[in-house]
Amino acid sequence: MNTKNLMLFAGRSHPELADRVAACLDVPLTPQNIYDFASGEIFVRFEESVRGSDAFVLQSHGAPINTWLMEQLIMVDALKRASARQITAIMPFYPYSRQDKKHRGREPISARLIADLFTAAGADRLMTVDLHTAQIQGFFDGPVDHLFAQSLLARHIRDRYGDADLAVVSPDAGRTKLAEKWADQLGGRPLAFIHKTRDPLRPNEVVANRVVGDVRGRTCVVVDDLVDTGGTIVKAVRQLLGEGAREVVVAATHGVLSNRAAELLAGSGAREVVITDTLPIPAQKRFPALTVLSIAPLLARAVHEVFEVGSVTSLFDGHA
Amino acid sequence: MNTKNLMLFAGRSHPELADRVAACLDVPLTPQNIYDFASGEIFVRFEESVRGSDAFVLQSHGAPINTWLMEQLIMVDALKRASARQITAIMPFYPYSRQDKKHRGREPISARLIADLFTAAGADRLMTVDLHTAQIQGFFDGPVDHLFAQSLLARHIRDRYGDADLAVVSPDAGRTKLAEKWADQLGGRPLAFIHKTRDPLRPNEVVANRVVGDVRGRTCVVVDDLVDTGGTIVKAVRQLLGEGAREVVVAATHGVLSNRAAELLAGSGAREVVITDTLPIPAQKRFPALTVLSIAPLLARAVHEVFEVGSVTSLFDGHA
Amino acid sequence: MNTKNLMLFAGRSHPELADRVAACLDVPLTPQNIYDFASGEIFVRFEESVRGSDAFVLQSHGAPINTWLMEQLIMVDALKRASARQITAIMPFYPYSRQDKKHRGREPISARLIADLFTAAGADRLMTVDLHTAQIQGFFDGPVDHLFAQSLLARHIRDRYGDADLAVVSPDAGRTKLAEKWADQLGGRPLAFIHKTRDPLRPNEVVANRVVGDVRGRTCVVVDDLVDTGGTIVKAVRQLLGEGAREVVVAATHGVLSNRAAELLAGSGAREVVITDTLPIPAQKRFPALTVLSIAPLLARAVHEVFEVGSVTSLFDGHA
Amino acid sequence: MNTKNLMLFAGRSHPELADRVAACLDVPLTPQNIYDFASGEIFVRFEESVRGSDAFVLQSHGAPINTWLMEQLIMVDALKRASARQITAIMPFYPYSRQDKKHRGREPISARLIADLFTAAGADRLMTVDLHTAQIQGFFDGPVDHLFAQSLLARHIRDRYGDADLAVVSPDAGRTKLAEKWADQLGGRPLAFIHKTRDPLRPNEVVANRVVGDVRGRTCVVVDDLVDTGGTIVKAVRQLLGEGAREVVVAATHGVLSNRAAELLAGSGAREVVITDTLPIPAQKRFPALTVLSIAPLLARAVHEVFEVGSVTSLFDGHA
Amino acid sequence: MNTKNLMLFAGRSHPELADRVAACLDVPLTPQNIYDFASGEIFVRFEESVRGSDAFVLQSHGAPINTWLMEQLIMVDALKRASARQITAIMPFYPYSRQDKKHRGREPISARLIADLFTAAGADRLMTVDLHTAQIQGFFDGPVDHLFAQSLLARHIRDRYGDADLAVVSPDAGRTKLAEKWADQLGGRPLAFIHKTRDPLRPNEVVANRVVGDVRGRTCVVVDDLVDTGGTIVKAVRQLLGEGAREVVVAATHGVLSNRAAELLAGSGAREVVITDTLPIPAQKRFPALTVLSIAPLLARAVHEVFEVGSVTSLFDGHA
Amino acid sequence: MNTKNLMLFAGRSHPELADRVAACLDVPLTPQNIYDFASGEIFVRFEESVRGSDAFVLQSHGAPINTWLMEQLIMVDALKRASARQITAIMPFYPYSRQDKKHRGREPISARLIADLFTAAGADRLMTVDLHTAQIQGFFDGPVDHLFAQSLLARHIRDRYGDADLAVVSPDAGRTKLAEKWADQLGGRPLAFIHKTRDPLRPNEVVANRVVGDVRGRTCVVVDDLVDTGGTIVKAVRQLLGEGAREVVVAATHGVLSNRAAELLAGSGAREVVITDTLPIPAQKRFPALTVLSIAPLLARAVHEVFEVGSVTSLFDGHA
Repeated sequence: MNTKNLMLFAGRSHPELADRVAACLDVPLTPQNIYDFASGEIFVRFEESVRGSDAFVLQSHGAPINTWLMEQLIMVDALKRASARQITAIMPFYPYSRQDKKHRGREPISARLIADLFTAAGADRLMTVDLHTAQIQGFFDGPVDHLFAQSLLARHIRDRYGDADLAVVSPDAGRTKLAEKWADQLGGRPLAFIHKTRDPLRPNEVVANRVVGDVRGRTCVVVDDLVDTGGTIVKAVRQLLGEGAREVVVAATHGVLSNRAAELLAGSGAREVVITDTLPIPAQKRFPALTVLSIAPLLARAVHEVFEVGSVTSLFDGHA
Repeated sequence: MNTKNLMLFAGRSHPELADRVAACLDVPLTPQNIYDFASGEIFVRFEESVRGSDAFVLQSHGAPINTWLMEQLIMVDALKRASARQITAIMPFYPYSRQDKKHRGREPISARLIADLFTAAGADRLMTVDLHTAQIQGFFDGPVDHLFAQSLLARHIRDRYGDADLAVVSPDAGRTKLAEKWADQLGGRPLAFIHKTRDPLRPNEVVANRVVGDVRGRTCVVVDDLVDTGGTIVKAVRQLLGEGAREVVVAATHGVLSNRAAELLAGSGAREVVITDTLPIPAQKRFPALTVLSIAPLLARAVHEVFEVGSVTSLFDGHA
Repeated sequence: MNTKNLMLFAGRSHPELADRVAACLDVPLTPQNIYDFASGEIFVRFEESVRGSDAFVLQSHGAPINTWLMEQLIMVDALKRASARQITAIMPFYPYSRQDKKHRGREPISARLIADLFTAAGADRLMTVDLHTAQIQGFFDGPVDHLFAQSLLARHIRDRYGDADLAVVSPDAGRTKLAEKWADQLGGRPLAFIHKTRDPLRPNEVVANRVVGDVRGRTCVVVDDLVDTGGTIVKAVRQLLGEGAREVVVAATHGVLSNRAAELLAGSGAREVVITDTLPIPAQKRFPALTVLSIAPLLARAVHEVFEVGSVTSLFDGHA
Repeated sequence: MNTKNLMLFAGRSHPELADRVAACLDVPLTPQNIYDFASGEIFVRFEESVRGSDAFVLQSHGAPINTWLMEQLIMVDALKRASARQITAIMPFYPYSRQDKKHRGREPISARLIADLFTAAGADRLMTVDLHTAQIQGFFDGPVDHLFAQSLLARHIRDRYGDADLAVVSPDAGRTKLAEKWADQLGGRPLAFIHKTRDPLRPNEVVANRVVGDVRGRTCVVVDDLVDTGGTIVKAVRQLLGEGAREVVVAATHGVLSNRAAELLAGSGAREVVITDTLPIPAQKRFPALTVLSIAPLLARAVHEVFEVGSVTSLFDGHA
Repeated sequence: MNTKNLMLFAGRSHPELADRVAACLDVPLTPQNIYDFASGEIFVRFEESVRGSDAFVLQSHGAPINTWLMEQLIMVDALKRASARQITAIMPFYPYSRQDKKHRGREPISARLIADLFTAAGADRLMTVDLHTAQIQGFFDGPVDHLFAQSLLARHIRDRYGDADLAVVSPDAGRTKLAEKWADQLGGRPLAFIHKTRDPLRPNEVVANRVVGDVRGRTCVVVDDLVDTGGTIVKAVRQLLGEGAREVVVAATHGVLSNRAAELLAGSGAREVVITDTLPIPAQKRFPALTVLSIAPLLARAVHEVFEVGSVTSLFDGHA
Repeated sequence: MNTKNLMLFAGRSHPELADRVAACLDVPLTPQNIYDFASGEIFVRFEESVRGSDAFVLQSHGAPINTWLMEQLIMVDALKRASARQITAIMPFYPYSRQDKKHRGREPISARLIADLFTAAGADRLMTVDLHTAQIQGFFDGPVDHLFAQSLLARHIRDRYGDADLAVVSPDAGRTKLAEKWADQLGGRPLAFIHKTRDPLRPNEVVANRVVGDVRGRTCVVVDDLVDTGGTIVKAVRQLLGEGAREVVVAATHGVLSNRAAELLAGSGAREVVITDTLPIPAQKRFPALTVLSIAPLLARAVHEVFEVGSVTSLFDGHA
């Protein structure tokens, strides 16, 4: 009886991922009529009754990010008004996650705003993957199922490079803690990070990058939660190779790949760049050294556990 | 002392309108640093203290409408966190105003959602012009200053065509009430509307348009709140000319002008199409018969009255 | 097991309707102790446990409307505090529905206030019939089951007058859209409306009514959502007969029938006046030409569908 | 400059009190257009701008209590939407104050509901007089100015009967604490109360009243917060006279005087019955032994202090 | 299937009571990891999945009361974020219940604050025993299961002293109503209270206690909701014995027993002091005349009824 | 006129800091009556009218932390109910800031809970110093003035050690970003951190600390936001000295100094330990190498700016 009540919905941003999750769950995507009016306003109508359902609404927040956001909010509103029993917004890549604090006065905290907008629309729970900072969980006043794709990536690295003399490298001082987790997960590997130095007279300008830690002769795994324009990562790869690293592998959960990121990465000298499909990776952004792992099985298992009232924690290394 | 506290902010959607409002108010637009990240996420930071200010945030919701919406929400969030005393979101064309009810089950009520999103972000008051339906005022739990551009348009019509044998025509049964207000405002003119008949066997399809009311030999003023793709309006113009109208003038507040609307209107046979600048009208959408009146003076006066704690009602025909 | 949890409650305003709904549902009205204190304050206590129930609270908002409103709010409060699982307020005639916008400044939006009061008391969902404007659905931040009695009325008209040369007439410009729906539902009939003209010098005063559209020789069906004092309707009937209509039938969902409405309608010359029992129609307001159809079966089916987590939309022409 | 912003509003329930408060404050009642539609729905519109005002809305909650409640809520809604800066609802007699707890399961707590309804409508602060239980202050999530008319009444008693051999009598065990405050305030007088005994076999039925405490030969002051039907008070008067009291005086803040209360009190043998005008006392309820003191000066001083940001506490014996 | 979902949690304040409730319910206490950091901050983690559970969180609010409060709030927060379906906070002795109103201006209403803090943390329902004032139920915006230990105490008194010539005595004018309920429950016994008189020149100082009512030669049962420092109770016992009472028994629900209360009570001359274990009574506070009855069976039955969606009202004398 | 409205309040946790802030502001601490009842419940009453004031409530959250939290919440509740115009809770050391995310499933996010509790009590704004993670700002739905004591500390380090060959060291991978800010602020100094390695078979246990980065012969400045038990810091000092650092200086904002922290630090070999007085540092925790800088001037300037509607951002390095 429960089975008929789990309903899966997806916005238009990433149909491949939606199809994969549906297949893993063996639940069809709910048919819907969704389109843009000429004015750009989005319309949606579900073609089956959703009354009393446990609704999961998947959207992937790549470009055009604001459109996909509004689309998901509108879908949640429609579900609330159509008497869905519980609404979980699935956002594999949490939008605006890098605006999670005020760096200076008179800035927004857009990541908190996102949580508030979903509350206003009627979402009861969020499900997301590898948040930029884990504190974002606390921006939502309700359950947040925070899944870790890092295990997926780490397994891949272990399988391919486990026998090499590895070092884990954070491309930025602020990601060192994340790198430390990787170092543990890969079996107690050494750790390094790139220190950006600034001229005291021009404080907002980086004047040099220094590698802090020992990387010479090692296979360096540069880890981050996301790759956006690729600038920081590519600089890190070059710096590491320049300081004697044997080879460099990049691993990150979210492939934003803005601007010329794919091109830059392809030419960076990195042996492999491993990401997941939390965001769509169109053909023109793919290059030979790029590996894309699917998070669909992870999402599907989490949805299943939430629906069956099981323990998401027990499934995913006790971190959800 | 009050003066230094009125602060005017504008998103990036319609700089000409923002400049006009600022000029009318004799208040500068607050300098800000606003741009898109490569990922499409919007960043904003105000360059002056906004603490304790009475903040008015203008945005015009043309395409890309969802981007401009998120931008305004993010601006409001930043103002709230920077201790603005009161925040008024100005949206001359209320976004998603046509999704103001469920036409069928399992649809959103996006116009209500918009009000809720602004509440969530921290807006204390809304200011808008000629709502698609006046009930939208009730979607917001706080003051809504609802301004009427209709007076502006009607004055123009009266000045140009007041001596002609006028009839006011609603292009749709649902706009007949609005047309009646126009008929009164133009001095007790006759009224007509276009009746869309549907085949009983194919209920969602319009099979014929009939003019109900007497239009022969008259200068017909087709009135509406907005012109979107222009389809309904252009059909009305042709129908009226076909049924013997002397000439047709179109008057509407909001020039959405999606798709080929400008082109269609230019070739419709209408003598004049009068709209306002609640939405930006780029050069390529302008054509000889198009007249664009500015609502900037109206907005500026309303802002001034709100700030000075005067009566918006008294200024604008007792309707605000 | 579900069955024992559906509980039906009714205020004291319209016991006949409550009994009919209970009979249609085959669910007893929950026994309660309800009375006025000498001071006019209302007391209620339910005589059976309501813990965990899916509670439906029916009230009909005729005169004394404010008393019946408070009674229903108090019932909802008692249910919330007694741990009802879900509370649906059924209000067949939505109170204060005509105050759904500010006509001028410094007015309330009482229809929104009503929605807020029910939220404050603890209602999770509203169920109502033929709202004055469909936008009122958006005043409530949750599911609203909006039922259509129009189908019931139209079936009656079709059965009795389907073979006549019908015209559908809106008594007011603002109801023309509703009339258009009727015209479609009755099979593509012609449409007319009454245009109230105002003297430009005395703008709030109607100086003349004009029929716009062709009614001569036809059986005119004057349609509206409600009949209150009957003034507008009676004037429309006379106007239509005066302009050559063959006969006039009036159809409206809500029979408010204030003041001398029944008397006026009885003497208006209308062949039949068809309404429903969303409001109580006492014996002294009944007259030979009056037909009262019961909405109890419609309400009962909707309650059943909500409770069984079925689709209200599928039942009622896809409009709920 | 502040002066022009204090605005006083009054519902239609008790115009004499409104006029007296306005006179004491030397502030006019704001002109308004307020009436009932034929359907019983209330309409209100303020005839002056209220934008930015510090609004005080007075209503007296006698019969028809639910109508006056809704009227005040509607007035508050209109003020909120018209941008009043702060809204204080003045309710000299707090409605539904006796339903301040669940006496048994499945009852409402209507006094809490009232507070929630005013919050929903938009009231920022409540002002009230001699609450039935002081805990009701905690039902509202904001400032409650709780004024004490007891001092007014006690002064009157002291002036007239201060030299007599007084005893203070509570007509009910639950009011003994209040009586103790009176006993202190009148200078350390003895205290008594009426003990209602119940037959153990019929627990909800009072079988006898016993005076506990010494009243013989004394001038007994029976004190209560309100007189409703008068039943309890009249029984107390008779019991006291029967047990040898020299004479009996009744003092209570709120004269609800339902049903035949005035008649019963007039014939009870009480020498004087002293109440205030928190509720209207029409001519037909007045009788020779009735003294009505006006709370208007107290209300006016409190409004003045709230507006001037003074201390209500310091004015009224440190209790507000 | 329901059974596996009832989960019982307990803070660290009163393990004996938690064990007794768990035993009565035949449900284990959910294992948890709970401790103080060196800084005094509390940490908690549940060791089993709580997703979808009907969670009951027991805490007893003795000293250090603020620590136990925060601990319970933190437990509720963790349950909310871990997707418990419904959360009931059980607080046998409602904390800060004596600060249930403002005695003078500029005081908090801490009992209302407590309710708001639990709402903020995520509690859906409260369960408590013998509130200081029943109005506190109305401080929470949701169901409050208010259990009565008085029946438990009264049964004990009836069993031991039912044949004696009893009088029920309130130690304070404000508790006379409670005493009247006891008098009824014990079979129509006479009633007395202690009148504290104050010097009119020093109003906040009690100058003498007088017994009002007849106690000579009787077995006096002094009743109260709680015994804190014991001062008032011990004075009452002495006063009663001094005025000729045959013997004095004290009955109260909550044994706060602060400071030297146990010692004072032991030496007060009271024949027996009967309390419950809503608060922990450590060995050093126990004395020969002290009887402690357990409320665990009462709590367990209420939890069972809530969980089974039964009627708490029917179980507990119709008062819950 | 504004001056009389700024009111400063302080809990009992850190009177020295309160006095210093009051002195810097030249505003007296508002007199209040505050004490614990015997039961441990806290009582507070303000002795002057607070109506209309801009209230700043200072509390320092050292041990007993839960007591000081409840005290501040109760003070805020009292201010709200006494009509303070705006309430700012000042918490120099944000309580529970280290529980800012779920490290594993079924944990609370206590730092978010704290923000919610202050919202529930009525706080409009928070003011705090050097948050453990800046994301905590986003836990509060309103303005947070986040002050930086780091500048104060850095100035001290620069003055004393500016000429030495400095290195900045993070005692933990997670603090490396903070250390990078220090390195910039001290003029582009080199950076190092302590890498805690874990045995892959016992993942939660640290098996070794490694210094990553070059520290030999340098004056190492170990920086952190707080010093709690001192364990991590003392290990870092020893590790650095062991790896050839010339000397080690410790700088941290919050001196929690739990357990034997002072003793451990005194014997750690650190040349100087610099902290601030955000928390009270009693005499027994002071030792010769400890320097305590006062944040009172910083707090006072921020309060002044908030009150005067100035820019906190401009004052404090653009970070507030």
